[in-house]
Amino acid sequence: MLEINKIKKRIKKIGLPPGILIQSEEIHPDATISVIDYDKDSFREKTVDKIEECFVFKDQPTITWINIDGTQHMSILEKVGECFNIHPLVLEDIMTMGQRPKIEYYDNYVFIVLRMVYLDKDTKAMVDEELSLIIGNNYLISFQEKPGDPFHVIRDRIRNGLGKTRKMGSDYLAYCLMDVVVDNYFFILEKIGEALEIIEEETLENPTTDTLQKIHETKRELIYFRKFIWPLREVVSSFNRNESEHVQSTTQIYVRDLYDHVIQLIDSIETFRDITASILEIYLSSISNKMNVIMKRLTLITTIFMPLTIVAGIGGMSEWSMITGPDHWMISYPLFLLGLVIIGFISFLIFKKKGWT
Amino acid sequence: MLEINKIKKRIKKIGLPPGILIQSEEIHPDATISVIDYDKDSFREKTVDKIEECFVFKDQPTITWINIDGTQHMSILEKVGECFNIHPLVLEDIMTMGQRPKIEYYDNYVFIVLRMVYLDKDTKAMVDEELSLIIGNNYLISFQEKPGDPFHVIRDRIRNGLGKTRKMGSDYLAYCLMDVVVDNYFFILEKIGEALEIIEEETLENPTTDTLQKIHETKRELIYFRKFIWPLREVVSSFNRNESEHVQSTTQIYVRDLYDHVIQLIDSIETFRDITASILEIYLSSISNKMNVIMKRLTLITTIFMPLTIVAGIGGMSEWSMITGPDHWMISYPLFLLGLVIIGFISFLIFKKKGWT
Amino acid sequence: MLEINKIKKRIKKIGLPPGILIQSEEIHPDATISVIDYDKDSFREKTVDKIEECFVFKDQPTITWINIDGTQHMSILEKVGECFNIHPLVLEDIMTMGQRPKIEYYDNYVFIVLRMVYLDKDTKAMVDEELSLIIGNNYLISFQEKPGDPFHVIRDRIRNGLGKTRKMGSDYLAYCLMDVVVDNYFFILEKIGEALEIIEEETLENPTTDTLQKIHETKRELIYFRKFIWPLREVVSSFNRNESEHVQSTTQIYVRDLYDHVIQLIDSIETFRDITASILEIYLSSISNKMNVIMKRLTLITTIFMPLTIVAGIGGMSEWSMITGPDHWMISYPLFLLGLVIIGFISFLIFKKKGWT
Amino acid sequence: MLEINKIKKRIKKIGLPPGILIQSEEIHPDATISVIDYDKDSFREKTVDKIEECFVFKDQPTITWINIDGTQHMSILEKVGECFNIHPLVLEDIMTMGQRPKIEYYDNYVFIVLRMVYLDKDTKAMVDEELSLIIGNNYLISFQEKPGDPFHVIRDRIRNGLGKTRKMGSDYLAYCLMDVVVDNYFFILEKIGEALEIIEEETLENPTTDTLQKIHETKRELIYFRKFIWPLREVVSSFNRNESEHVQSTTQIYVRDLYDHVIQLIDSIETFRDITASILEIYLSSISNKMNVIMKRLTLITTIFMPLTIVAGIGGMSEWSMITGPDHWMISYPLFLLGLVIIGFISFLIFKKKGWT
Amino acid sequence: MLEINKIKKRIKKIGLPPGILIQSEEIHPDATISVIDYDKDSFREKTVDKIEECFVFKDQPTITWINIDGTQHMSILEKVGECFNIHPLVLEDIMTMGQRPKIEYYDNYVFIVLRMVYLDKDTKAMVDEELSLIIGNNYLISFQEKPGDPFHVIRDRIRNGLGKTRKMGSDYLAYCLMDVVVDNYFFILEKIGEALEIIEEETLENPTTDTLQKIHETKRELIYFRKFIWPLREVVSSFNRNESEHVQSTTQIYVRDLYDHVIQLIDSIETFRDITASILEIYLSSISNKMNVIMKRLTLITTIFMPLTIVAGIGGMSEWSMITGPDHWMISYPLFLLGLVIIGFISFLIFKKKGWT
Repeated sequence: MLEINKIKKRIKKIGLPPGILIQSEEIHPDATISVIDYDKDSFREKTVDKIEECFVFKDQPTITWINIDGTQHMSILEKVGECFNIHPLVLEDIMTMGQRPKIEYYDNYVFIVLRMVYLDKDTKAMVDEELSLIIGNNYLISFQEKPGDPFHVIRDRIRNGLGKTRKMGSDYLAYCLMDVVVDNYFFILEKIGEALEIIEEETLENPTTDTLQKIHETKRELIYFRKFIWPLREVVSSFNRNESEHVQSTTQIYVRDLYDHVIQLIDSIETFRDITASILEIYLSSISNKMNVIMKRLTLITTIFMPLTIVAGIGGMSEWSMITGPDHWMISYPLFLLGLVIIGFISFLIFKKKGWT
Repeated sequence: MLEINKIKKRIKKIGLPPGILIQSEEIHPDATISVIDYDKDSFREKTVDKIEECFVFKDQPTITWINIDGTQHMSILEKVGECFNIHPLVLEDIMTMGQRPKIEYYDNYVFIVLRMVYLDKDTKAMVDEELSLIIGNNYLISFQEKPGDPFHVIRDRIRNGLGKTRKMGSDYLAYCLMDVVVDNYFFILEKIGEALEIIEEETLENPTTDTLQKIHETKRELIYFRKFIWPLREVVSSFNRNESEHVQSTTQIYVRDLYDHVIQLIDSIETFRDITASILEIYLSSISNKMNVIMKRLTLITTIFMPLTIVAGIGGMSEWSMITGPDHWMISYPLFLLGLVIIGFISFLIFKKKGWT
Repeated sequence: MLEINKIKKRIKKIGLPPGILIQSEEIHPDATISVIDYDKDSFREKTVDKIEECFVFKDQPTITWINIDGTQHMSILEKVGECFNIHPLVLEDIMTMGQRPKIEYYDNYVFIVLRMVYLDKDTKAMVDEELSLIIGNNYLISFQEKPGDPFHVIRDRIRNGLGKTRKMGSDYLAYCLMDVVVDNYFFILEKIGEALEIIEEETLENPTTDTLQKIHETKRELIYFRKFIWPLREVVSSFNRNESEHVQSTTQIYVRDLYDHVIQLIDSIETFRDITASILEIYLSSISNKMNVIMKRLTLITTIFMPLTIVAGIGGMSEWSMITGPDHWMISYPLFLLGLVIIGFISFLIFKKKGWT
Repeated sequence: MLEINKIKKRIKKIGLPPGILIQSEEIHPDATISVIDYDKDSFREKTVDKIEECFVFKDQPTITWINIDGTQHMSILEKVGECFNIHPLVLEDIMTMGQRPKIEYYDNYVFIVLRMVYLDKDTKAMVDEELSLIIGNNYLISFQEKPGDPFHVIRDRIRNGLGKTRKMGSDYLAYCLMDVVVDNYFFILEKIGEALEIIEEETLENPTTDTLQKIHETKRELIYFRKFIWPLREVVSSFNRNESEHVQSTTQIYVRDLYDHVIQLIDSIETFRDITASILEIYLSSISNKMNVIMKRLTLITTIFMPLTIVAGIGGMSEWSMITGPDHWMISYPLFLLGLVIIGFISFLIFKKKGWT
Repeated sequence: MLEINKIKKRIKKIGLPPGILIQSEEIHPDATISVIDYDKDSFREKTVDKIEECFVFKDQPTITWINIDGTQHMSILEKVGECFNIHPLVLEDIMTMGQRPKIEYYDNYVFIVLRMVYLDKDTKAMVDEELSLIIGNNYLISFQEKPGDPFHVIRDRIRNGLGKTRKMGSDYLAYCLMDVVVDNYFFILEKIGEALEIIEEETLENPTTDTLQKIHETKRELIYFRKFIWPLREVVSSFNRNESEHVQSTTQIYVRDLYDHVIQLIDSIETFRDITASILEIYLSSISNKMNVIMKRLTLITTIFMPLTIVAGIGGMSEWSMITGPDHWMISYPLFLLGLVIIGFISFLIFKKKGWT
């Protein structure tokens, strides 16, 4: 249960003064730091070993995108915090996993936390990690929990000077990253939608206990994603309305478009919830229907065989031989059996006619 | 499941820079472009082969309605975008299907996306497609997914100079188109309402598994239309409040009327949802009631025949012949059978009296 | 299903230009037009044949109440529209049945549509019709679908100069009409409330399939009235807040009182909905309880008779005669039967003790 | 059903002009009028026969509390209305029972209607009546439906000069009355809470049809109180925000405290609703569980005895005597019976092992 | 039921004048009063016997934290009230348990009530008590119901001069206390979350009546905590927006962080509620599924054995010996038995093939 792991992480910190960073135990062995520095005309990209190497870009007019994989490395966070003058509470938020998506405005930067779910290009596995963005005047610092991300498309675009990215500021870069995150949510929703389609068919045709579990799992997934996507709306909406100097008006039209996408995500999730609820109702009705069918069968069998049992009980065959005389049992016995079959068949016909089947 | 197809279309675009048009694979072989140009006194109508032929109308004071069937044709969109100075994100929205109904204001035009569902006049088939409108000062460009639309009534009105259409601007023309779209929704709702009526009757009289599936389908349809009609309210309401130069005050009174219709649509959908929920409850209760009836039947049969089985078991007919002597079995046997029938009938009477049937 | 009839009427109009009146087919043979003209001192009342006879009152300072029964008469509507300068869309709304209650402000009048449900004084039948009001400076025009209305009390009050009606303006007259409409809703709710009381008792004492249908019907009625009473709140609230010259401040205190009544109506409807939902839950639980009782009965009978069947099967009476010798069957047989009864009774006692009944 | 009685009272008035008092038929034989007149230093209390005796206090600077038991006495209401210049609609509201709690501001007074539920000190019976307050500058008039109220504590406080009451104005006195009303609601909620506790235990341990009825009753009670307590919030909140000259700022801090209590009432009611809903769910699940137990029992009995019936049927004891010879039936018969018991026991063991019990 | 105890405490006070303290009966024998007085440079801590000893700190510029365990001691409260000029209603709120979390602003202090749930460090028991804070300019008074609290971490921090606490004012101290309270809620939610995990597994694998009770208990706990955590949001949000002189802008950034945590708490509670609801649905479906399985089993057994009973009834073994002659019963009997087994097996196969198992 994802919910609980998140709460557990919180608890370790109970009683500590706010804004104090604590070294997480589950460190990814090596933090990867990469820098992309560009403007309309120039472009530089390198992977650095020490975070200090990035700080030279700080005072240059070019846009600098510092990406740090491995938010658990306290020392790096502290140095970044010092160099870019980041509030300790922000650093604490970056380190603490399980944050609710949010946006916060500070004097010299905007701080955004997002949950990012994507299919890793190489391993084809689903990755669920946190993404923190610090958007300064001419820089963007992105913090990721684990190595690997879906941002290669943006890097390519910057490298090749495609689109408007090279011509715009750090706010547009932040928009691009968020756009990729939102686009990946659509991918997840597609998976859920396909699962729902199969579950729906299964429920209508042949619902089993397994189906019930699948419905429950889908519900749980929707509850999970809902928690990250609803606050996303606030984040993007606030980013759109933002009048600080960090977001330029030329970017706003793109953020508005992003906002539309988030609304569409929410629409889809709510629709999926409605559909799941409807499927569960069908499931429950189907079970009741099945029960009815079973009971009808039982009643049918009981109704047909009970009278026969009595008839069979009353007069065992030996009685019948009385009529024909004991020596003619080869005539009387089959006659008796035939009688039974006829009685059974008549019962069945009555049953049928009364519409009890 | 419509929901999923829509999401799928989104996914193809993951990672692409915003505002970049991608050529859709499912192109309708030929895009149809038709132009209607009119003012109070003049009227011209033609079907053009090349979109460039329409651009001459741009700088004329007359109202020009350019209708393009087939939004998948990238080259046309690009040329329109260039000529009328349309923002790339708008063009992207026009090309991307599965949009949420929305309205956006730009400097020189208003952009509206709607979902349009109508019964094709010729094929009598239900058509579900997207309609995008660009409302400029003296022009209206409408983009449709597929050929065929329900707008022939408006074209006739313009041709014949009926109503106010010829005397009003492009905003009134946009209102007319939206009015037809909304009117067609009432038609769809009527279909659903009629289906609901039949389902209701079926549920109250003889609910089957089939009924359950119909209820589920109606629910799904309502969920689907709800998604398009609720945002429509925002669109029309915003269009009504709009104070840009694109909407004249004389048109507003009509838009307010349109808004009333949309509210009525929403009212009807919500009422249908309530009724569907109520029908499902009845359905579930009916199944339980049916089960009770079946169980009562089973209990009745068991109660009547079980004692008989015992009696039959205790004394086979041969015992009875003891009383009368084996030779008088023709008397004793029928007497025994009569006894059984009487016992059975008494059981039934007791059952009846206790109100167990 | 009322809902659908309403939508059907809409559909006939699809594609027509807005504000164009179409002649309804279901015309009540004769429209009745009556005029009451009054001020503090004078009073005149007459039934006119031609609507034009009413127009003379338009420019007089006295308050004129023109009541038109039969909104389907297009020619009358058109003449009224021309004389009092009514917007075509308003005339369209008056003619189109199934309107949502609404209020609209125009330069020289206020337009109100209401749904009116009342018990006809003469026929004792429930009448459900639409009431449109046009409130001008010194006139009020009321349009009713059918002849007959609950307004005789107001007419009497005006005739006899009772109350404040003669001293106040057309806005107060409009308030009086709306007050009667709202008061009649209380009457309907009383009927529903009484029905609910009976259903509740039935559900608690002896729920049948019929009860279920009654619950469903009540739910449907509540859904229906809810649709007219909720928008009524907006209408009255807006009328109360209205600062146009058409509503005087002396009238506002009465409208506020009317608003309180509407709130109370809504309160009652919501309470009824809650109670209906609660009754349905009880109903469902009752069915389950009943099933339990039936199953217990079946189990009881099976438990008692099954062992007996075996005992009876094992040793038919002939075996028992073995013990006493075949000649003493008159002793052994009754003994055997007694044994069966004792075994059956013991089973029953065990059953009872284990609390299985 | 309280709801309906209230609506019935409304109906009698249909068609009457607003603000016209009608004599209620159910008059309490004698209206009791008591006056308490006080300021910081003086105190006077008397029971008057004629309402006119109270009017002398009107123009004195001391605070006068006139309490009238029996709102049905039209003549008294009319005289009060005339003397204190009360609007006819207010008098109508005082006379009409079943009002929704509300507050209304007039030029020279504030009008408050509340529903009051309390345990009568003398009769120990639950009383449910309406309380109307008219709060003037230096007077407070309280109207009660029936004699008897829970206000003796306030009277004692005024008499003995305890607390701040004597030092404060009529607004503080009104606050005191409302505080007592709210405190008495807590008492009612305690009763409901205790009932819920018992129902909860019953549901978890041994749910019967009776339990179901109790759950329904509690639900009905909560629906009833909810209707009076939710509007109370608006009343107190408005009284708190009120900036008219009738409420002094020194009183406002007390009204805020009262508001907190009302919020707590609402919190409790909503919590009780949640708990009731949860109990009903448990109840329904319990019934289903019980059914399972019953069915298991039936299946167990059937499974054990059915094979035995066959065995018993196949070979009646007479067959077995064949093996040992008819003369040794005293050996063969018990052996056969033992065999049956063993087969039955084995069936039971298989059943047990498969976990079917 | 916690809800009721709380209401009970209220009732004792019915009729008393507001702001009058009443001595609670359940007094903890000794109230513990401890004082911590500090500024950036100095630090003093002592436990006092008489509350008067604390009052000397009042006029000093250092920050003074007075903590009083045992809010039931009326005399102490009264003295504090007098010295620090606290409004009687606030003192009443401190003494009355079961308050809804709230914040109130007074001229010279801010008053906050919270519910605090924590695991006692020493006894390892869950403690549920009320915490009242009075935040003055340079002092903070905290009132606790019982001795023992989770604030040792804050005391240590102050003692050792860790973090910013010593450098900040009384508002920051209040924030620290609230932060600890909120952190402890996460701990409680973790417990509930773990319980939910177990319940979920149980429900999916083997739901029993016990599971149902656990689900109900978890629901009750969530209802309980929800009541304290939702109002907390208002408290923290108001504290954050507060512009009084009691909260400095440097503290606000921390309070905003606290607010985020409260939102996360609410998110988790709502998620847990959704999950609990989903588990209950699964539970109900599982019971129905189980019932189906039981009924199928019963039907299977009935279907197989009923025909056998008849066959066994028709021809007892003695008949079969007829065929072979009575002397060859050792051949005819086993043949007959074999026949029965074969018939039974064929019934079973038919059953299987029809998918009735």
